[in-house]
Amino acid sequence: MTRQMHLGLFLLGTGSHVAGWRMPGAVDSFQDFSAIAEIARTAERGCFDLIFIGDNLYADPAAHPSYTLRLEPLTLLAALAPLTRHIGLGATVSTTYSDPFTVARAFASLDHISGGRAAWNAVTTASPATAANFGTVHPDHARRYERAGEFLDVVAGLWDGWADDAIVADRDSGLYIDPGKLRALGHEGPFFKVKGPLNIGRSPQGRPVVLQAGGSEAGQDLAARTADVVFSVVQDLDEARAAYASLKARLPAHGRRPEEVSVLPGVMPVVGRTEREAFDKLAQLQGFVGNENALALLSDRLGQDMSAYDLDGPVPDVALPDSYHSFARVMLSKARRDGMTLRDLYNLTAAARGHWVLCGSAETVADTLQHWFETGAADGFNVMPPYFHDGFTDFVDLVVPLLQERGLFRRDYRGPMLRHHLGLDRPPR
Amino acid sequence: MTRQMHLGLFLLGTGSHVAGWRMPGAVDSFQDFSAIAEIARTAERGCFDLIFIGDNLYADPAAHPSYTLRLEPLTLLAALAPLTRHIGLGATVSTTYSDPFTVARAFASLDHISGGRAAWNAVTTASPATAANFGTVHPDHARRYERAGEFLDVVAGLWDGWADDAIVADRDSGLYIDPGKLRALGHEGPFFKVKGPLNIGRSPQGRPVVLQAGGSEAGQDLAARTADVVFSVVQDLDEARAAYASLKARLPAHGRRPEEVSVLPGVMPVVGRTEREAFDKLAQLQGFVGNENALALLSDRLGQDMSAYDLDGPVPDVALPDSYHSFARVMLSKARRDGMTLRDLYNLTAAARGHWVLCGSAETVADTLQHWFETGAADGFNVMPPYFHDGFTDFVDLVVPLLQERGLFRRDYRGPMLRHHLGLDRPPR
Repeated sequence: MTRQMHLGLFLLGTGSHVAGWRMPGAVDSFQDFSAIAEIARTAERGCFDLIFIGDNLYADPAAHPSYTLRLEPLTLLAALAPLTRHIGLGATVSTTYSDPFTVARAFASLDHISGGRAAWNAVTTASPATAANFGTVHPDHARRYERAGEFLDVVAGLWDGWADDAIVADRDSGLYIDPGKLRALGHEGPFFKVKGPLNIGRSPQGRPVVLQAGGSEAGQDLAARTADVVFSVVQDLDEARAAYASLKARLPAHGRRPEEVSVLPGVMPVVGRTEREAFDKLAQLQGFVGNENALALLSDRLGQDMSAYDLDGPVPDVALPDSYHSFARVMLSKARRDGMTLRDLYNLTAAARGHWVLCGSAETVADTLQHWFETGAADGFNVMPPYFHDGFTDFVDLVVPLLQERGLFRRDYRGPMLRHHLGLDRPPR
Repeated sequence: MTRQMHLGLFLLGTGSHVAGWRMPGAVDSFQDFSAIAEIARTAERGCFDLIFIGDNLYADPAAHPSYTLRLEPLTLLAALAPLTRHIGLGATVSTTYSDPFTVARAFASLDHISGGRAAWNAVTTASPATAANFGTVHPDHARRYERAGEFLDVVAGLWDGWADDAIVADRDSGLYIDPGKLRALGHEGPFFKVKGPLNIGRSPQGRPVVLQAGGSEAGQDLAARTADVVFSVVQDLDEARAAYASLKARLPAHGRRPEEVSVLPGVMPVVGRTEREAFDKLAQLQGFVGNENALALLSDRLGQDMSAYDLDGPVPDVALPDSYHSFARVMLSKARRDGMTLRDLYNLTAAARGHWVLCGSAETVADTLQHWFETGAADGFNVMPPYFHDGFTDFVDLVVPLLQERGLFRRDYRGPMLRHHLGLDRPPR
C-alpha cells in the first residue's frame, strides 16, 4: 500500500489563533459542546485519523481564551464518542498531576465506550503555575520525565492485566471470569506502587494509542520508547526534517521500526480559494491582535533593522547573516516568490504562537504538505485551525480533496479503530 | 404542588443481584456501552430523576461481577449525556483517592456537556484494598471523613470561582473575560492547598448536585451539611424511618430546610404481573446462587432453629425473641399475610447483599413504595434492578404508571436540569 498521510485535528475550542474567536460567526466558547460536536463531525467527514485535545490545569485569563475556559478532555471526548463512528479521540492527561491507576482505567473505559478509538497524550506539564492547584511543588524537568517514564510503564502494565478471553460469562456454569486469565501488576518503583489489576477488561485496541509531544532530549527518548504518535512543534522544513530524523533515529535502540511511530508536525493552515484570499484572512485575524510592533518583530526575526521599510510594500531583497535561523531564509524566499508584502510576512510570523503557519491557496497548502510528507519532514500533520468552523471547513473541503486526488490521504476509513487508521498492530499482551 | 417521589436508577451494569447476569437474555457485561445506553433511555422514558453509578477502585473477581469489570463512571456518564435529554447523571468519585481540583473540574465539565445534569456522589471509599492501587495506606474512617469534608468545601469553592457573567466574549472590543468576575480560591487546609480558580466557567446548575450515601454518624453529619440527595441502605420500614428522621433532624444545625435534601432508600424491586410471578422470578434469580444453606440463614435471621421446617412449606407461626431485629417481625408478618413459603422468605433475605428487596405484583410494589413515601421513610427511592433489561423495564412499565396515576410521580420532566427534577434552587455564588 502506498504510504499515506495521517491527519490529526488539534481541537482548541475557539481555534489555535489567539483571537480566532473574534472572526465573524466563529465559535466563541470552548464550553459549547454542541459547537464542538459539529467540529468533530466535520473532522470525521474529512476522514481525519483523530481529534487531539490539549490541556492545561490552571486558569490564566491573559493567555489564550480556550486555555482558560475549557471543557475537561476526558469527559469531552467520551461525550463525542457516541456522536462519531470512526475518528480517534485523543485526550491530554498529565503524568505529573494524576495517578496511573486512574489514568489507565479512564482511557481503557474510553476505548471500550468508543469501540477502540481512545488515545492518551501523555504530557509532563511544563507550567509551574499548575502546582498551586494541587498543593505541591512543580518538579523539575528531569524529575518530571523520570516520573513520566515510570507512569507510562505502569499504565501499559495495567492495560495488559486482563487477557482478552478472561471474561467467560457462562450462564450455565455461572463462571463469570477465568481467574487464570488476569494478573496483578505488583509494580513497585521510585514513584509508584500499584498492585492492579484494573477493574476493567482489556480494551478493544489492546492498549489505547499513546501520543506525545515532548521536543526535549528526554521527551524524544520517552516518545521513542513509548509513543505511537508524536506531535512536533516546528517552524520550517529544515527544522521539521531534523526533528523527524532525530525521533526516527532513536527507535532502533528500543527495538522499534520507523513506521511504528508517526511524526505529525503542528500546522496552522490559513486557506483561501486564492493566495490573496488566504493572506487577507490571515490579515483579518492579525487585525484582531494589532500590529503596532510589526516592523520591530520583523527586525528581530530577520536579524536586521527593518524599521525604514513600508509595511505594505513588497518584501525587500535584504541579505541575511549566514548564521541566521533557517526560518528567515525559507520565509524570505517564499515571500519573494509569492509576492508577499512585509505585512503578509509579519502576519505569518506573529499568528501561531510558535507553531507553523501555512497560508495560501488550497493548491499551495496541499503542495507544501505533500512536499513535507515526501521529503522526510512528516508522516502527516496535526492540523491547528485558527478558528472554527470556517477556518477548519476550508481545510476539509478545499485541501483534503486535493490530497485525496493525489493518493496522499484516505478517502474512507478502513477499520473502526484508531489503530487501523494509523496502521498500527494490536499489541500482544 | 403536591409532594412527589424522586427516583434514581442504580445502574450496576449486570444488575444489583449478584447473579442477575445469568437470567436468560440479561445484560451480561458492564463494559457493553450500547446496552448501558439502552438502560439509560429506559430510565428517561420512566421519567427518573437520575442515573446513579457507584464505583470501586480495585478488581475482586470473587465479588459482584460488575464491581470487577466496569466502565469508569465519569467517562460513562459523559458518553450518555448526548444520548439522553433530561435525566440526571450521577457519578461516584472518591474523596480519598482523587484531587479536588480534578474532581471539581470534571463535574463542572460534565454539567456543561449535559446542559445541567451532573451529580457527584462523594464517597470516602470504605475498602482498604483500594490503597494498594494507589501506593498509599488506607486512612481510617475518621480521617477519611475529615478529608472528605475539606474536599467538598474546596470543590464547592472552585465551582463558585467564576461569576455567571464572567465570560464577555465581545468581538468588537476583544474583551473575552471580565477579570473582576472571577476569583481565586486560595484554600489552605490540613489536607489541601488549592489556589484556583478552575479553568472552566460556572456550570449550568451553578453547582452540580451532590449525592452521598454514608450511614455512619460522620457520614450523616457530612451529608446534612453538604448533600442534596442521600441514598440510605435499609432493610425495613422502621429502619428507613429512623434513618430518614435522623438525617432530617441534622439539617437545621446547618441552616437547611428538610426539603433541601432528598432521602432515597435503596430498593431492589422484583416485579411480576402477579405475586406468584414475582416470587418465581426471585426464586429463579436465587437458583443461580444456590440455596444449600437456606434454612441455616433463616435460622440466623429469625433468631431460632428453623432446620426442622420444610423449605417449600408455609412460613410457620414462630414466636420471636422480644429483642430481635425489626426486620424479622416485619418480614414474618408480611410472609404470613402474603402466603409465602419459607423458600420465598429465604429468597427475599439472601438476594440483595444488604439492600431491601421488594418482591411482588406491581400493585404491591407501588403500594409499599407509597406507604414508605407517605409515612416518613423516604422522599423517593434508589431503584436497584436485579438485572437488565427486563428486571428494570418491569418496574418502568408496570410500577411507574401506577405511581403516576396516583399522583405520586411526574409524568413529564418540568425542566432540563437535574436541579429542576429535584426541586432544588440554583445556588447563589
